[in-house]
Amino acid sequence: MTSVPMGAPGAGELFQHLRDGEPRTKAELGELSSLARSAIAARLEALVSTGLLRPVGEAASTGGRPPTRFALDDTAHAVLGVDLGASHAAVAVIDLVGNVRREVTVDSDIADGPVDVLDRVLDLADTLLTDLGLESRDVMGVGIGVPGPVEHSTGRPVHPPIMPGWHEFDVPGHLNQHFDGPVLVDNDVNILARGEHVGAWAHEDHLLYVKVATGIGAGIISHRHLLQGGVGTAGDLGHVPVVEGETATVCRCGNVGCLEAVAAGPAVAAVLRERGLDVHTTQEVVAAVRSGDTDAARAVREAGRTIGGVLATCVNLLNPSIIVIGGTLAAAENLVAGAREVIFQRSLPLATSNLRIVTATGDRAALVGAGAMVLEQVLSPSAVDAIVSRTLLENAG
Amino acid sequence: MTSVPMGAPGAGELFQHLRDGEPRTKAELGELSSLARSAIAARLEALVSTGLLRPVGEAASTGGRPPTRFALDDTAHAVLGVDLGASHAAVAVIDLVGNVRREVTVDSDIADGPVDVLDRVLDLADTLLTDLGLESRDVMGVGIGVPGPVEHSTGRPVHPPIMPGWHEFDVPGHLNQHFDGPVLVDNDVNILARGEHVGAWAHEDHLLYVKVATGIGAGIISHRHLLQGGVGTAGDLGHVPVVEGETATVCRCGNVGCLEAVAAGPAVAAVLRERGLDVHTTQEVVAAVRSGDTDAARAVREAGRTIGGVLATCVNLLNPSIIVIGGTLAAAENLVAGAREVIFQRSLPLATSNLRIVTATGDRAALVGAGAMVLEQVLSPSAVDAIVSRTLLENAG
Repeated sequence: MTSVPMGAPGAGELFQHLRDGEPRTKAELGELSSLARSAIAARLEALVSTGLLRPVGEAASTGGRPPTRFALDDTAHAVLGVDLGASHAAVAVIDLVGNVRREVTVDSDIADGPVDVLDRVLDLADTLLTDLGLESRDVMGVGIGVPGPVEHSTGRPVHPPIMPGWHEFDVPGHLNQHFDGPVLVDNDVNILARGEHVGAWAHEDHLLYVKVATGIGAGIISHRHLLQGGVGTAGDLGHVPVVEGETATVCRCGNVGCLEAVAAGPAVAAVLRERGLDVHTTQEVVAAVRSGDTDAARAVREAGRTIGGVLATCVNLLNPSIIVIGGTLAAAENLVAGAREVIFQRSLPLATSNLRIVTATGDRAALVGAGAMVLEQVLSPSAVDAIVSRTLLENAG
Repeated sequence: MTSVPMGAPGAGELFQHLRDGEPRTKAELGELSSLARSAIAARLEALVSTGLLRPVGEAASTGGRPPTRFALDDTAHAVLGVDLGASHAAVAVIDLVGNVRREVTVDSDIADGPVDVLDRVLDLADTLLTDLGLESRDVMGVGIGVPGPVEHSTGRPVHPPIMPGWHEFDVPGHLNQHFDGPVLVDNDVNILARGEHVGAWAHEDHLLYVKVATGIGAGIISHRHLLQGGVGTAGDLGHVPVVEGETATVCRCGNVGCLEAVAAGPAVAAVLRERGLDVHTTQEVVAAVRSGDTDAARAVREAGRTIGGVLATCVNLLNPSIIVIGGTLAAAENLVAGAREVIFQRSLPLATSNLRIVTATGDRAALVGAGAMVLEQVLSPSAVDAIVSRTLLENAG
């Protein structure tokens, strides 16, 4: 057994106080960590030797030599965030704080299959990295969102309905031919929940994200962490039954009266076609609402109410501080208004006392969320401890 | 700023590998923690000096001097678990592994008010501690379950309907006159969820506990931790609407058609009285089922189905590995059977692929859960690090 140099254990914990990118002095880190000055000095030295941290300019001082400050080195390392949709692929180089440094989005058909799509992602990543003066070995990990269910532990899609050829494909294995770090894969709704959380609502501990588009799904942030569930299906709200009886709409899952079959974009479009409107896609429904069509506005609001009924149960069960509603159909504000109406009507007063219900920002949330997923792992206390130990051993040898 | 001796940081992490009470050698701890032998030796020495750990007998060895093993010292420290019901008070001295060492239950009316009831608890605790040769200062913390809502951050009951005089009473403040450590208070359903988890299902990461008695409530264990929610009301399932319209039963919360108003013990009793049975309490409903009354069996099964409908949504949302159904009405097996029927009918196949639905063990779950709640805090890595630092400083000074 090799000996680990002293000063390595605990460095990963101290590092967490610098994750926000703000430069801090040893004294400031002492207050945050309750560690003694000597311990902080040893850990900072170890962290600087890894390249994760660097000394930066001066802090304001009351006199004498100004104290050194330490900050994340946001140029030497990065992670990749990847957002794969039905018809697009977006790739971003993300710094260790979680900010997008450079990104690109291209048209890309998910049905081209995993090898073609992922090789396209690799080409895009190469260009972005080269532009920034980075190499593959500077990439600490890759986070990927895909439009379908994923087995969380292996990163393999599981019978994804709109991703032909992807079932059980070893996404991490394919990308690990080019990048050494962890490759984490999750469904797009969980990724968006993470992205909305770290991007716009990082101060909230309990966030429920709901995507309403062709389907309906949710991502749950609880105590600041994504809730995955036993087999990773947590948040699958689309198939909660909301209408009983034989006349209820048949859902693509085989049951009847599922939330998705009643209140997602295609269901609203179908209702509007019965009333004589020529709408087929969710985008067309939104456009009809925006053009002032009363039937469209009313149908979207009713969909929002139906979704709100299910979300009221979620509020009683999870007690979130904020519900963020995104997806194509949420671009019509009537949807969120309808959901809000029923949630506040049906949930317990105490559970809704501080609850906000807002429309998603959407801006870069998928890329930011994919980055956040992998940063959570590669910059965890134990992961940073391992990097420090490895560096100290290499330097000693 | 005082200097913290080396060897203290990281001790709390190493300690986690001994929380189960099993004695382990330095070599075994090296495998579990990936720490170097020298680091383990320093941390163990620090932990032994606190009295939390002690060297115990010999491990099997291949020859030479047998290696020392280290284990939790389960005699020098303890926590208290307290279970307050409407008409009983139970107190237990619990060792650091979480096992009940000694317990007592007495009749106690919660309506006697907080000072009388808590002083009764203190008297019971004193007797138990004396019997075990322990003193108040050996108690590292107290966990208490009460039959009403509690503000988690302060430990104060909030408008608890069956606890007159307890609203906003400072339970931790009152007990901290006698015990130094943290006093944590939570509602009985969350406590039972913790107790069922650590007592019977500790290998499951995702557990949903549902109590069906006079009311209906749930406690959620997600990723091995209790889910509290933004203001601590997570799991409040009793007031999910399950019946629509003006004919629906009025609930004590003021809404109509709540799950609790339709499927809890009093609701089932009311249905049976309409059919001519002389039943009033939930216990009498259970007795009627056990005596072979068909109406009672049918009514309880129907209540189980109604609860199952709400739990199906919970399964889609949370994806638990196990649902544990407890409370007085769950003593009638038809309840769990009815719930099981609807959950498996209505939830997504993937979410139920490994799902089990079982009846609660009930055995000591409240006391064990109260103990587990406080042990989670007082034996956390950072709490143990703090104890180690304090001990080393005292010994140095």
